[in-house]
Amino acid sequence: MLKAKVIVKLKDTILDPQGKTIHHALETLGYKGIEKLRSGKFFEIYLNTDDKEKAKELVDEICKKILTNPVTEEYYFTIE
Amino acid sequence: MLKAKVIVKLKDTILDPQGKTIHHALETLGYKGIEKLRSGKFFEIYLNTDDKEKAKELVDEICKKILTNPVTEEYYFTIE
Repeated sequence: MLKAKVIVKLKDTILDPQGKTIHHALETLGYKGIEKLRSGKFFEIYLNTDDKEKAKELVDEICKKILTNPVTEEYYFTIE
Repeated sequence: MLKAKVIVKLKDTILDPQGKTIHHALETLGYKGIEKLRSGKFFEIYLNTDDKEKAKELVDEICKKILTNPVTEEYYFTIE
């Protein structure tokens, strides 16, 4: 069984109100020294295969078609 | 400037309805071969410091106190 770790984040040019809110909250609570905070999503996908190439293709397709919005988001993943 | 990449995920013993829903949706759409899917959160934190040790301490404290619920979630991060 292989495990894919997928990170989905907003493209750098896209506003991130959630990240901004957390950043502001941290400053209000006294945590200085943070320049920027961006939020995103994380998925762990356990796959019924030991073929790394096939796993890579499947996860890439799922990311492209289902897990992300290609207009506003980008993704990367590792398989282990 | 250093950048921390934080991954927050539900502990393995905690139910993950969002992950289950995505998993089910993928199966309905014809994507077979997925054993399990778990969802989580991802944060990129840009820090105004070049001191890796200080950055590590700050990010660890923020994770423990703000970004995660230690009862249901676990986290790990890298700093680069």
